[in-house]
Amino acid sequence: MNKNTTTNTRVEEVFNLYINHMKEFLKEAKLNHEEYTNFVNWADRLGREGELPLFADVFLETHVLQAMYTDMPGTQPSLLGPFFIEGSPLVEKEPGKSYVVLPQRPDEPGETFYFKGSVSNTEGKPLANTRVEFWQNDHNRGYSHFDSDAPEYNLRGHFYTDENGDFEVKTIVPLPYSIPTDGPTGEFLGYTDQHSMRPAHLHIMFEAEGHETLITQVFFEGDEWLETDVAEGVRDELLTELKDQGTYKTASLDFMMRKI
Amino acid sequence: MNKNTTTNTRVEEVFNLYINHMKEFLKEAKLNHEEYTNFVNWADRLGREGELPLFADVFLETHVLQAMYTDMPGTQPSLLGPFFIEGSPLVEKEPGKSYVVLPQRPDEPGETFYFKGSVSNTEGKPLANTRVEFWQNDHNRGYSHFDSDAPEYNLRGHFYTDENGDFEVKTIVPLPYSIPTDGPTGEFLGYTDQHSMRPAHLHIMFEAEGHETLITQVFFEGDEWLETDVAEGVRDELLTELKDQGTYKTASLDFMMRKI
Repeated sequence: MNKNTTTNTRVEEVFNLYINHMKEFLKEAKLNHEEYTNFVNWADRLGREGELPLFADVFLETHVLQAMYTDMPGTQPSLLGPFFIEGSPLVEKEPGKSYVVLPQRPDEPGETFYFKGSVSNTEGKPLANTRVEFWQNDHNRGYSHFDSDAPEYNLRGHFYTDENGDFEVKTIVPLPYSIPTDGPTGEFLGYTDQHSMRPAHLHIMFEAEGHETLITQVFFEGDEWLETDVAEGVRDELLTELKDQGTYKTASLDFMMRKI
Repeated sequence: MNKNTTTNTRVEEVFNLYINHMKEFLKEAKLNHEEYTNFVNWADRLGREGELPLFADVFLETHVLQAMYTDMPGTQPSLLGPFFIEGSPLVEKEPGKSYVVLPQRPDEPGETFYFKGSVSNTEGKPLANTRVEFWQNDHNRGYSHFDSDAPEYNLRGHFYTDENGDFEVKTIVPLPYSIPTDGPTGEFLGYTDQHSMRPAHLHIMFEAEGHETLITQVFFEGDEWLETDVAEGVRDELLTELKDQGTYKTASLDFMMRKI
């Protein structure tokens, strides 16, 4: 409540728009009182079970991003999602290695995977010393801290691009993932006849001085869930080829950040 | 999930409309990512604190009703609100009395109030034996079971209209009421610069065989919050005059129910 007047005006504007669109929805849906009560009861369960951020991130966040970024230069963002947590460890290259190793169990199950990225601004200038935050799911399709029994910060870490704006990280191949279906979000999927799957993806957040923070994801060509991603997070330019190198896989992608 | 196909089609339609309107909202509001996150965090708190039904009933329910009933014959409904509970006691007239007494403490503080109602169908035919559910706040502006320390079902009860479709109930005069402001709903009011008051009102729900259940409220002429009711529940035809009879007050209103 202790916001300044500019903030309050903007918050008021956003809330008023929200209420107006909810009114439009109610007018158009012509809910009877029982349907309204059912809808509110569903939303109440969604809220009490703490699934509201899940629901919003899966069904709405991508539209926020599309409204802002479609037709803008630079790499398209994708959803932050509900599985990001603050405080991941800094990882550094061991001497003689070209890559950092994402924090993982000594016997982390999964296919060994080297991912190379290169970060520049929208004019092609490499962005050295860019902070790269990286998180993904594990072989059981779970995220540490949420639905995996892995240690805190497993498959989560941050590191920096080198003098050429490049980075390389050793991890495992992420897997397609079902969003939780045992709560009110799952009910919603059942009602609207949608599956609950997301294609395999890496989460990456880039932070560089003087540039807009870029929160995005990387997807793999040929994934069966690309077209029907429940969260609609896939963008063509976020697709890369997962190359089979025998005992391990590799992939790479270029990223472009926008100046502020 | 074990709904029949018709229900599922309707639920799917409603949810799709909801998502489409949320997309429109996001597009129009052009939220940046921080604003989106703030909005989701607010909604998450609203949900976790169990205020979602409060928020919906105060800010949305009236629009559901207006979308359905404006321009229809019969008494306009008003919101059920978040303070209705099932299971109120049946109250009956004592011998020789013309009224029922709403369940209340022996020393219930407040102004003694006799409210008379008369229930007919939209053609004016009296509806005898109509079930009348009646609830209201107390002298401390609280509702039993929610924000009053009164016993369960205090100032809540149900009874039936007589052979002429009439009823009379002895209670106390309800008072203007502030919706709870210490949670996320209160934050919303602060942001949008709205007060939190509802005018004094009675809640009444009528059920009669062969008729649509009528959920409505009764308001009093001259109440200072009629024009700016936070829940926008006031309708002209739901207004009555609170008459001063010296040691007590009286009021009356006619209600018309719609045939199914």
